Amino acid sequence: MNTAGLTHLNEKGEAHIVDIGDKAVTRRRAIARARLSGEAATIATILGGGLRKGDALAVARVAGIMAAKKTSELIPLCHPIPLTKVSVDIEGDGDASIVIVAAAETTGQTGVEMEALVAASTAALTLYDMAKAIDRAMVISDLCLVEKSGGKSGDFQRAS
Amino acid sequence: MNTAGLTHLNEKGEAHIVDIGDKAVTRRRAIARARLSGEAATIATILGGGLRKGDALAVARVAGIMAAKKTSELIPLCHPIPLTKVSVDIEGDGDASIVIVAAAETTGQTGVEMEALVAASTAALTLYDMAKAIDRAMVISDLCLVEKSGGKSGDFQRAS
Amino acid sequence: MNTAGLTHLNEKGEAHIVDIGDKAVTRRRAIARARLSGEAATIATILGGGLRKGDALAVARVAGIMAAKKTSELIPLCHPIPLTKVSVDIEGDGDASIVIVAAAETTGQTGVEMEALVAASTAALTLYDMAKAIDRAMVISDLCLVEKSGGKSGDFQRAS
Amino acid sequence: MNTAGLTHLNEKGEAHIVDIGDKAVTRRRAIARARLSGEAATIATILGGGLRKGDALAVARVAGIMAAKKTSELIPLCHPIPLTKVSVDIEGDGDASIVIVAAAETTGQTGVEMEALVAASTAALTLYDMAKAIDRAMVISDLCLVEKSGGKSGDFQRAS
Amino acid sequence: MNTAGLTHLNEKGEAHIVDIGDKAVTRRRAIARARLSGEAATIATILGGGLRKGDALAVARVAGIMAAKKTSELIPLCHPIPLTKVSVDIEGDGDASIVIVAAAETTGQTGVEMEALVAASTAALTLYDMAKAIDRAMVISDLCLVEKSGGKSGDFQRAS
Amino acid sequence: MNTAGLTHLNEKGEAHIVDIGDKAVTRRRAIARARLSGEAATIATILGGGLRKGDALAVARVAGIMAAKKTSELIPLCHPIPLTKVSVDIEGDGDASIVIVAAAETTGQTGVEMEALVAASTAALTLYDMAKAIDRAMVISDLCLVEKSGGKSGDFQRAS
Repeated sequence: MNTAGLTHLNEKGEAHIVDIGDKAVTRRRAIARARLSGEAATIATILGGGLRKGDALAVARVAGIMAAKKTSELIPLCHPIPLTKVSVDIEGDGDASIVIVAAAETTGQTGVEMEALVAASTAALTLYDMAKAIDRAMVISDLCLVEKSGGKSGDFQRAS
Repeated sequence: MNTAGLTHLNEKGEAHIVDIGDKAVTRRRAIARARLSGEAATIATILGGGLRKGDALAVARVAGIMAAKKTSELIPLCHPIPLTKVSVDIEGDGDASIVIVAAAETTGQTGVEMEALVAASTAALTLYDMAKAIDRAMVISDLCLVEKSGGKSGDFQRAS
Repeated sequence: MNTAGLTHLNEKGEAHIVDIGDKAVTRRRAIARARLSGEAATIATILGGGLRKGDALAVARVAGIMAAKKTSELIPLCHPIPLTKVSVDIEGDGDASIVIVAAAETTGQTGVEMEALVAASTAALTLYDMAKAIDRAMVISDLCLVEKSGGKSGDFQRAS
Repeated sequence: MNTAGLTHLNEKGEAHIVDIGDKAVTRRRAIARARLSGEAATIATILGGGLRKGDALAVARVAGIMAAKKTSELIPLCHPIPLTKVSVDIEGDGDASIVIVAAAETTGQTGVEMEALVAASTAALTLYDMAKAIDRAMVISDLCLVEKSGGKSGDFQRAS
Repeated sequence: MNTAGLTHLNEKGEAHIVDIGDKAVTRRRAIARARLSGEAATIATILGGGLRKGDALAVARVAGIMAAKKTSELIPLCHPIPLTKVSVDIEGDGDASIVIVAAAETTGQTGVEMEALVAASTAALTLYDMAKAIDRAMVISDLCLVEKSGGKSGDFQRAS
Repeated sequence: MNTAGLTHLNEKGEAHIVDIGDKAVTRRRAIARARLSGEAATIATILGGGLRKGDALAVARVAGIMAAKKTSELIPLCHPIPLTKVSVDIEGDGDASIVIVAAAETTGQTGVEMEALVAASTAALTLYDMAKAIDRAMVISDLCLVEKSGGKSGDFQRAS
């Protein structure tokens, strides 16, 4: 079977948590983002005139941060990681979308890309949950890794 | 403050879990989807020649199903819901993307849109996790509600 | 052994989750509170000029709400309960303390006192966590049930 | 906005998990306590003639210990910490109250005050849960940090 | 593919949580057991002269009870179930083994066999954990369903 | 009281999480196994003609792996451990039983025997869950530690 590259499967195609016991302990960082798009009126209601009004953005930030800490419970083959930092930033982008940027860090033997991605997607889904009564058709897109550093596989920087 | 429509915030803008104690107990269903796009070689490796080879798709299906059951732990203002059915389907779509479709059902007082969305996004992120060593630039998009039924707010059917 | 009254222990003194299978399904409500006391400057910083500034109170509200949903994971002999409503209110009381009031509801076979108490204590501890760098000596007190209704054991209303 | 001192909020007042990646790895300890007060008859029933009779105190000890391990799931901005020791002691204090003392330790980059506080409060709430059928008016008070050591912020020792 | 009978897989062999939305809500009970065997001295130390001495059996009982409530988090295709009763009994059986019997009940649309089995196995593993320093070779066996009732599939009663 | 050897209880017989703060950080490994026995037809259906057909074995593998990461939530006095590797192998053994072998590793201050045992038992229970509709009488036996290495207590190797 050609599963070359799928490091989480062994030569028989069976899932396992890969051995990182021999990897170096280094500082590792990752940044991920997600975009929530909807009707302009919905986006304006969520943003609500700025960060100072209402709990909506705070709830989404907290949801993203708490989800990052649950990553190894959600993604079956992720190693449990003692995160040393997590942040989630939420900003409007044009009048019809909101961009969420999540950053995670650890000092450990494996990277934190999944933690950043889980934080970004959960924050976006939380905003959807709070606004779905007025706009069920909202879409989350552009959920991706923006950059990572640390570890043997080298740094990654998304082109745009 | 104009938070009209954000049902999860009270008139002072404070977050709460809204009272559903008076809502009818009905059968409720929701279907959500997500798309994972990447290099054609990556997508082919994940799909691996079909559902019969290797655990990759099974791991993602299980991850989505288990995440659906964790929805109220992840999305702060979601009610805990006794799901009566969850399924996750994964298929290639063209040579550069994979579409995940998640369905959830309950018999209860509130809908299961968030459960379906959490299942779809977690399955997509799990595929990303397993393949990220070969293609860190993959993107998840088109994460959205496809349809819902049951409950007072009426049915929803995405146009396309 | 005299464990009369400790309904969660059997006649041999052994812990169990008591059988509620024959109890009536009724609407049940509970309200609990907690008080966080500290230096006036600390309290003022937490309250921050009102609910519109900063995430501190929103974070505590969300923490209390999410903890309520985890009650049966925390309190060993609590039944899992599908909460239909949770809210957490936080207000200053004098210049040296903050009062947290948590309300929970369900339609089920057992009460939600523990859910309300867990919400109130977790919200208070979350405020402590955010302010402990400036005032480690803060104290949480007055953590108690304020009122409950529904169920065969009758209503409860705290005197003061 | 004046959120000076609230280290868990950034300069815009937004919640985040603060970066501890540059802090020293040291042995850190914390002790917290809580007091449960009620009718003398209730307290006597809970204490039940000593540790050898019935599971009540054991259940509360286990609940406190297990809750300590869940601290970062409950307190949104807490770092996940690999605890190296947890203990919960429960003793009568006079005839109308019970004192719970919880101790936690780690070797890491941040303190364990919250772990000790969560253990103490959860043990107290668990005792309340088991005895609430006979005394719903019990109150938890004096929930506070008793001492901490380790880390750059210095040691703390409560006056009384 | 012949997966006839594996109700948790669809006709393509893919895992899903089966639809129970049309099943009747009935009272359902299940009893499971497990046996922990070891050196006579180990078993005597665990049993410790009876239920009145030490927390060992209480810790195992609590562990089993709390694990029963986590069943749908552990067993991927289990439905979340609102348990109405859980108990765990632990007794010596001869001088070289301990038998754990766990009972679970719900009023719902699916059975509680897995809840009883998870309670029994977790209680047994918890006893192993506490005694492993003196007898690492202990074995858990005879983990099985003893009886179940309620639901359309009929009652089950183990022969011996 | 004679609780000598039960390291998880103190001299008064009270449960605690033992202090490992002074233990050396070393590479620790453990292997555990479990056996699921049933009717030959059931076993054949589960094995389904090999690992390449259907999700049954993949679901059980994933369940075991995810449960290993939850060990400190399930076993009350276990320390939380950052696992560096987990794998679960499942194979038929004769025509009436299936053997599950789980391996876990960490670099830390305490061993991973419980993580391996929890993985093996959960994988076995997951297979039972998927096949119970056709053979409710299946039994799990031979759940035990096969070998461990690392740490001051020395290596362990089961005789057979």
